Amino acid sequence: MTRDDIPTPALLLDADRFERNLARMRDHVRAAGKNYRPHAKTHRCPEIARRQVEAGALGVACAKLGEAEVMAGAGVRGLLITTEIVTPAAMFRLVRLLERAPDTMVVVDNPENVDALGRAMSARGLTLDVMVDIDVGGRRTGAQPGDPALALARAIGEHKSLRLRGLQGYAGHCAHVMGWAARREASLRAMAPLMDTRRLFEASGIPVEIVAGGSTGTHDIDVELDGLTELQSGSYCVMDLDYRRIGGRNGELLTDFEMALTVTATVVSVPTADRAMVDAGLKAFSTDKPFPPEPVERPGITYGFAGDEHGRLTITDPSRAPKLGERIEFFPPHCDPTINLYDRIYIVRGQAVESVWEISARGRSD
Amino acid sequence: MTRDDIPTPALLLDADRFERNLARMRDHVRAAGKNYRPHAKTHRCPEIARRQVEAGALGVACAKLGEAEVMAGAGVRGLLITTEIVTPAAMFRLVRLLERAPDTMVVVDNPENVDALGRAMSARGLTLDVMVDIDVGGRRTGAQPGDPALALARAIGEHKSLRLRGLQGYAGHCAHVMGWAARREASLRAMAPLMDTRRLFEASGIPVEIVAGGSTGTHDIDVELDGLTELQSGSYCVMDLDYRRIGGRNGELLTDFEMALTVTATVVSVPTADRAMVDAGLKAFSTDKPFPPEPVERPGITYGFAGDEHGRLTITDPSRAPKLGERIEFFPPHCDPTINLYDRIYIVRGQAVESVWEISARGRSD
Repeated sequence: MTRDDIPTPALLLDADRFERNLARMRDHVRAAGKNYRPHAKTHRCPEIARRQVEAGALGVACAKLGEAEVMAGAGVRGLLITTEIVTPAAMFRLVRLLERAPDTMVVVDNPENVDALGRAMSARGLTLDVMVDIDVGGRRTGAQPGDPALALARAIGEHKSLRLRGLQGYAGHCAHVMGWAARREASLRAMAPLMDTRRLFEASGIPVEIVAGGSTGTHDIDVELDGLTELQSGSYCVMDLDYRRIGGRNGELLTDFEMALTVTATVVSVPTADRAMVDAGLKAFSTDKPFPPEPVERPGITYGFAGDEHGRLTITDPSRAPKLGERIEFFPPHCDPTINLYDRIYIVRGQAVESVWEISARGRSD
Repeated sequence: MTRDDIPTPALLLDADRFERNLARMRDHVRAAGKNYRPHAKTHRCPEIARRQVEAGALGVACAKLGEAEVMAGAGVRGLLITTEIVTPAAMFRLVRLLERAPDTMVVVDNPENVDALGRAMSARGLTLDVMVDIDVGGRRTGAQPGDPALALARAIGEHKSLRLRGLQGYAGHCAHVMGWAARREASLRAMAPLMDTRRLFEASGIPVEIVAGGSTGTHDIDVELDGLTELQSGSYCVMDLDYRRIGGRNGELLTDFEMALTVTATVVSVPTADRAMVDAGLKAFSTDKPFPPEPVERPGITYGFAGDEHGRLTITDPSRAPKLGERIEFFPPHCDPTINLYDRIYIVRGQAVESVWEISARGRSD
């Protein structure tokens, strides 16, 4: 099977670029003296998670319990679930997950939830590893740094069935700050209260083994933080337009990692001299970014969304007008929600399709 | 199983509202003396397609071959595939589909494609029903109305293996025009060249059995067109915020069909007095519309997207602050791409979960 045999629209992963991305993150993290647990919400694909762990990652972070269930079922260990588990039904599922993957960690940001988790684990004779989730300014989940976090740590300490492992703080609002210097300033400022909280815990006699955080945008920034022990960057393995455009330490584009992910589409209509239509629309790419997919090494056209199932190519160079049936690849604006639209990813090396990996945790936001 | 037992985020269909929507469209179309073949790209769910046909639809329209394969495999007949089939691999799949569902129709907008289809069918001794796809101003696929369409019809006539059934014109750019009067003017103007083309065909001795078009927004407008034979409105069966807001014949909201589709989510964090977080973000709702999901009968909060997996509730009434673990339902902005994020839909009647239907054609944009 070659690249040209894949039914479109389809998701493609360039194996060479992907492997180089894995090696670069490993080398970067090792050189910085840190660990990493990449976020699997990017890819939801156990085959990718396994390769990240083989390359040196401690495990993977999972956005949701459902994602972790799939990863654990596929044999991936070292899981950290980064959304709070608050309902009795979810705790019941967590107990089953722990039977399979006992080293799974969860985050907490609420004392009632700490008590509920503690009782649920104690009733089954289990011990659960927990991290205190800190709001470092992203205004999503997380306890406030400082005393509120310390109170939560003490609440955890009252439950023998809970083992406090450390702190987590994800500065999502800093991940895409344009320009490396501005991003560095934003991220170090956002992460400072997390580091202060670490010191507060330790001064209060509470050991802190793990402090986790960081995005692909801040992978070479957050490692400056002495108190950070592990990076959670996820998108680095595949990359997307949104991360490329924020700029890197040494240039206007972030090029530390290569653009390994594309969507391939087919020209299904060439109705006028200035326009061609492809079979990839807003069910083929996520639409959460304010810029469109970009044709890969295909000059003469620009892409615009034209409904659920169509993309409109505006022909800017008539001498390069698309032909009926032509295949065109595109870089997606945002990798995570684009991958989440597909059941599988075609692994290509040059023209050859080397493998097809199931995106087994696709849709598992539960 | 009750509504409160469903793992979140999840897609819910209110059975009573859905059934009333099916009955209303049937009654509307019958009263107008037309037929209908609802677009299944809305729901990608064979169980819904079956109920539409049981209610009186001729079959369903499918955006893509992949969608049609799933529908045919589930026993649904009367399929019309509304995206051109242009590659040899897709024609091979079409041949297999026709063996199962020989009454399947396809659209064409290009003479080369007509010849390729004609030869492919002839080589296998098959006859394929085709419709001429007309661009009625949406600037997607479709031949220009008038003479170019007539030339295409004549090209079809040169192939014994192709049987011209009629014309299709989808005025997607008129579907969401705000205000019924303005929408009526826009749609009738857009559809006029389609009606002219019908007359041109007939004056040229080419019989036209079917003229198909129309959206949920124009369901009570396009039936005014004498030359139109069948409506393709799809969203009517479930509805969404985008269609509700465009207004109806008699009011500021489109209320001919009821809001039957919701996404249910759980409050996973109540970190501050002014904010709560739910477990439904941009992997739980499509983001292609410029307005957010709306809480259903839950005052005191507004929803904002906060990443892949989180929605941020801003608490506007502190006396109604969400509780940890509380379930909240939301109307999605756009039904089609939201449904396409889920593998199944929970059918609820009051508090009871009556059934779970597979969205078997989810992701089948190929």
